[in-house]
Amino acid sequence: MRVSKEKAAENRIALLRAASQLFRQRGIDGVGVAEVAKAAGLTHGALYAHFPSKEALVAEAFAFGFDSNMVGVREWAEASHRSFDEYLDVLLSTEARDNLETGCPMTASASEIARQGDDVSTRFVNAFEELVSTLEATLMEIKPRAKRRRLAVAAVTAEIGAIAVSRAVAKANPTLAEEVLESTRKTVAKSRAALP
Amino acid sequence: MRVSKEKAAENRIALLRAASQLFRQRGIDGVGVAEVAKAAGLTHGALYAHFPSKEALVAEAFAFGFDSNMVGVREWAEASHRSFDEYLDVLLSTEARDNLETGCPMTASASEIARQGDDVSTRFVNAFEELVSTLEATLMEIKPRAKRRRLAVAAVTAEIGAIAVSRAVAKANPTLAEEVLESTRKTVAKSRAALP
Repeated sequence: MRVSKEKAAENRIALLRAASQLFRQRGIDGVGVAEVAKAAGLTHGALYAHFPSKEALVAEAFAFGFDSNMVGVREWAEASHRSFDEYLDVLLSTEARDNLETGCPMTASASEIARQGDDVSTRFVNAFEELVSTLEATLMEIKPRAKRRRLAVAAVTAEIGAIAVSRAVAKANPTLAEEVLESTRKTVAKSRAALP
Repeated sequence: MRVSKEKAAENRIALLRAASQLFRQRGIDGVGVAEVAKAAGLTHGALYAHFPSKEALVAEAFAFGFDSNMVGVREWAEASHRSFDEYLDVLLSTEARDNLETGCPMTASASEIARQGDDVSTRFVNAFEELVSTLEATLMEIKPRAKRRRLAVAAVTAEIGAIAVSRAVAKANPTLAEEVLESTRKTVAKSRAALP
């Protein structure tokens, strides 16, 4: 049966939405393509018509999840001028930590990306650079640019570590889970305050 | 066939070594218990005699991998008085980044731990606290203790993020992979320098 272009585009979005949520929730290796097709209400064959391999699906689902979240971040940022510290508060919040399946795919899959192929690595690079640029835009008083960039790179990296660690320890030690977020937030904010 | 106590202890070590390397290399969800038994040269049944569930194996393999590495860290630290910055150099080195299957299990499995059970979370907490205490011991001039602890917690968290991110981007952008390590190293070192 032929599928209209419109229907095909809808199916593609349904597959990407299901894949990106499942990969974040249960891990990239923890979810098979058959499960993704089922969650999207489609057949295995329909999935392969859009994504020739799991690697292709993982790469596109990663970018889809990140881009979807950035829409919300941009709306939030446009509501008023947001400072570096306000970004830290949001990125390192308990809500961000507890929001696994629709949260940042970089934090949800951090240690898993190294085991994926070049395409997934490229999508991770793009997402990382986009978040770095977003933070850098709040640091324009800092000159030269190299210092600004260094702080933004270290901040995004620290955030990814803090959310991953906070989630890892949350079951056994909820107090430590909060401390990790707070220590990172304060330490990165101080690094910013030490610059002009 | 009954196995002597000595042989049983040997088998257990072989299983933990195989499991801890495979889980780091290919991900916790990427490796089944049958594969671990095979890599250790043992049967499925022999594995279950030692570890009643995959969760039990994952928890003990995590602790085994971490403890084995800490033996090396302690030897290195005892050779001379090591400073906080020297620890950063080692923890955030390209060698640490490129050493996946025998490197730090916290960095190798960071984002995967949240999906495991309480036992694995407990082992992660223990490992995290041990590395925090090790760094804190190089910061004894910093008073009050809360400030020392905060920096040590933020440093270990940043290290876990930096190694995971550096590995994630290495295939697509090796220059960024180095920049992530360097930016984190310099930023954390400055946080330390800003304190007494």
